[in-house]
Amino acid sequence: MILKNFKQVEKTIFGRGGFKQLGEVVDEKRSENDGFAVFLIDSYFEDKSLVIPASGDDITLYVDVQQHEPTTHQVDDIRDKILLQGLPSSITGIGGGSALDICKAVSLMVTNEGSSQLYQGLNLIKNPGVWSIGVPTISGTGAEVSMTAVLTGPEKKLGLKCEWTVLNQVILDPDLIADVPTDQWFYTGMDCYIHCIESENGILNNAYSKAFGDQSLKLCREIFAGDQAGQTGENDEKLMVASLMGGLSLTYSEVGVCHALSYGLSYVFEYRHGYANCVAFNHLEDFYPEGVKEFKEMLVRFGITLPQNLSQRWTEEDVTRMAEVSIRLEHMWHHAIGEHWKSEINIETIKDLYHRL
Amino acid sequence: MILKNFKQVEKTIFGRGGFKQLGEVVDEKRSENDGFAVFLIDSYFEDKSLVIPASGDDITLYVDVQQHEPTTHQVDDIRDKILLQGLPSSITGIGGGSALDICKAVSLMVTNEGSSQLYQGLNLIKNPGVWSIGVPTISGTGAEVSMTAVLTGPEKKLGLKCEWTVLNQVILDPDLIADVPTDQWFYTGMDCYIHCIESENGILNNAYSKAFGDQSLKLCREIFAGDQAGQTGENDEKLMVASLMGGLSLTYSEVGVCHALSYGLSYVFEYRHGYANCVAFNHLEDFYPEGVKEFKEMLVRFGITLPQNLSQRWTEEDVTRMAEVSIRLEHMWHHAIGEHWKSEINIETIKDLYHRL
Repeated sequence: MILKNFKQVEKTIFGRGGFKQLGEVVDEKRSENDGFAVFLIDSYFEDKSLVIPASGDDITLYVDVQQHEPTTHQVDDIRDKILLQGLPSSITGIGGGSALDICKAVSLMVTNEGSSQLYQGLNLIKNPGVWSIGVPTISGTGAEVSMTAVLTGPEKKLGLKCEWTVLNQVILDPDLIADVPTDQWFYTGMDCYIHCIESENGILNNAYSKAFGDQSLKLCREIFAGDQAGQTGENDEKLMVASLMGGLSLTYSEVGVCHALSYGLSYVFEYRHGYANCVAFNHLEDFYPEGVKEFKEMLVRFGITLPQNLSQRWTEEDVTRMAEVSIRLEHMWHHAIGEHWKSEINIETIKDLYHRL
Repeated sequence: MILKNFKQVEKTIFGRGGFKQLGEVVDEKRSENDGFAVFLIDSYFEDKSLVIPASGDDITLYVDVQQHEPTTHQVDDIRDKILLQGLPSSITGIGGGSALDICKAVSLMVTNEGSSQLYQGLNLIKNPGVWSIGVPTISGTGAEVSMTAVLTGPEKKLGLKCEWTVLNQVILDPDLIADVPTDQWFYTGMDCYIHCIESENGILNNAYSKAFGDQSLKLCREIFAGDQAGQTGENDEKLMVASLMGGLSLTYSEVGVCHALSYGLSYVFEYRHGYANCVAFNHLEDFYPEGVKEFKEMLVRFGITLPQNLSQRWTEEDVTRMAEVSIRLEHMWHHAIGEHWKSEINIETIKDLYHRL
């Protein structure tokens, strides 16, 4: 068996006020390529008072990640705009998992020809990208440390994934996640919780993924379930670390059934990833009995109501399209079910799972 | 306050049999500099059957780390030998913390002029080094992830420390630590335990260092204290992860009183680092009451006897020399005691601490 040679983020700033050091971090790379820097910012911040350290001919773009998850079309568009000016010295993504994934994808696409559609999959990218910097403003996705930039293309929802997809630098400033609305805070935090449950329950789990997953779960329990649960300053700090550790856990192992189903929901109905995960996970007690039980307690703790009987409103065609997206995620099914997953999982069994929702 | 921009290991292979991938990892860099690779191996392995993937004009050197800890003189010597042949494409260190620190130091010294003595301290290195690869064969030191290459020079024991000191690649193969003699396994494992206790008990502790420290401590307790304690295959895997997490905890925080004292012991009496830590920590209940209590239980569990009344055999001059080494480690005292540490700690109070041993 060939073991993964796992690429990690090269530099990390962690702590309150860390965002103020972004300018200095960007300046370190100014001598590279054509010198200018690019800032890709979640459009949520367009009317907020976030101070972006852009200067001279730097490019600042607010990216729309509110309507749908990142698309290959969106990434290609941003890339084309940037290349009109040349090759940037760095690209910074500021926002949630979507903004970070767009940042990761654009930094690769400025140095790889053609549409990002061509590169959806494992190790298809040919050249390293430009220096990428991620600044999360919501925590849980693990995008700040993961190897994947998840994109929805005309044919599939699938990540660009190679060692160069990993961000080069991250700034983890708990001040930035203080004002996240509670429902988004919960759905995105549960992405982290689910990463750990899935990472630890499958054939690729190992001492490394388990140690990171266990500690991330412990932090999630303090944030979402204990006496001290809730959006507090201390929990914001813990959630940033939990997200990072959950991301490292799954990177060295794999996600599972919930993610495989959630990709279909996002592809067909444009559900946001964290929400789609929650909708699916809620019905996966057969696969993750303890995790789903605890998840339901956390739902109650924060008064979150998930939709019931969703599938009654879906057409058979919707369900088939989702199942077709889901079954392509072979690495997830393989991890969750085992070497012989194909004897248990097929389009029909996946459709049955969607019908539970 | 300026937050650390913390450099991490870029690539990690974790798992049994990972060592077999060393050749491929070395080959990835063959096109750099003068092409040849260097392997620096703990002399313990000179008569063992470890298969080193050296070829052509690669240099394989067995380094003596059994008699004393790494010295600036030793590093300069190895560097001079290598440079006779040119600039290597990579330098691999195989062994314990000493071998890894020599690897880290030599990869910097082939690109920085003069003696390594000149660079003992923070951010004194001028140029990045060549690609460095670390393969631990004993776990606990955290050298596989830390920013420091600790060296003993004619004047002091102090690390080379800058962002380039961090290894570029590590291979963590639990098979390699299976045969470590029990006393060394214990002393080196306790280095990890003490890193976490010191990291968490001081003013630089934060959510990041605490999350890594807590999980590393949990693993240490399973390895050294629980029903399942001992040198088992499962515990070897856990210890490799614990060591890594302990190293990350201290890197984002700091070590404390025990390390400050242990450096003096190693400098004057050439005690090995893990052993020196144990000798000092055993008497530090004033500073780390719970940690020392648990440490003593682990000593009993493994029948380890530490020397008593050592200081009765020391001359006043010995004690003064140790205290002089120790008080230079201002960053450790600052973290452990607080901003106003100088009002509590001076040469005389440090000498009193040594007299406890």
